Amino acid sequence: MAKDCIFCKIIEGKMPCEKIYEDEETFAFLDISPVNHGHTLIIPKKHARNVFDISEKDFLSVMRTVRKLAPIIKEATKADGENVVMSNEKAGNQEVFHLHVHIIPRYNGDHKSKGFVYEKYKEGEMEKVAKKIKANL
Amino acid sequence: MAKDCIFCKIIEGKMPCEKIYEDEETFAFLDISPVNHGHTLIIPKKHARNVFDISEKDFLSVMRTVRKLAPIIKEATKADGENVVMSNEKAGNQEVFHLHVHIIPRYNGDHKSKGFVYEKYKEGEMEKVAKKIKANL
Repeated sequence: MAKDCIFCKIIEGKMPCEKIYEDEETFAFLDISPVNHGHTLIIPKKHARNVFDISEKDFLSVMRTVRKLAPIIKEATKADGENVVMSNEKAGNQEVFHLHVHIIPRYNGDHKSKGFVYEKYKEGEMEKVAKKIKANL
Repeated sequence: MAKDCIFCKIIEGKMPCEKIYEDEETFAFLDISPVNHGHTLIIPKKHARNVFDISEKDFLSVMRTVRKLAPIIKEATKADGENVVMSNEKAGNQEVFHLHVHIIPRYNGDHKSKGFVYEKYKEGEMEKVAKKIKANL
């Protein structure tokens, strides 16, 4: 448990939440500011900051719960689709620094996602970027 | 392999791509319309439509590769953070119907994510939604 982490406090029962699911390694509860009703957060019980800081074992436990809950949330909310989203570090829009995966129910035409701004690679840039990543593998 | 699936064709080498990584179960390549350079797609080799249609084994293989590549892409692109994003069904903004996870490098102040539109629950609604989800568990 990390000191002053609100998600650790939720897991410990020291902060209230609308719990959906819990197993040995993971915990899931409703986001209090949902994109649509049923918007759920899945977190590891063992504190980790984000994708850069979590053991493979704990990350896969979180993802096992994500896959388990995704169709159940879709069914319960009569959603047409879902976004599965994880924000890592402030630059990636992370606000609570305990890894959490959002499952966001979505409806055809709900206009709830404003998406991203996209670019194009200039000639030759893509190969250079790929090379740089592969050099670090 | 699914007929007429462009990601299956990429895996088979019948369509070009800038490949980053490959193992027995997964394949990763650069998105041709990146949010930022280094924007990568991770896919299962065995065709699956999305999170509602993939075996636990194959989903966890994809996520093992996501966790493996996330810090490597961050380092290679000198990013400050990352979004990890999966779109499921058309309502969830899915465009190619072969499961893919985006790793999107992000920079402080890059304003590349426009985010979601949020709501609030009215009194009593949250408990009702949680109950409905838990009844399907």
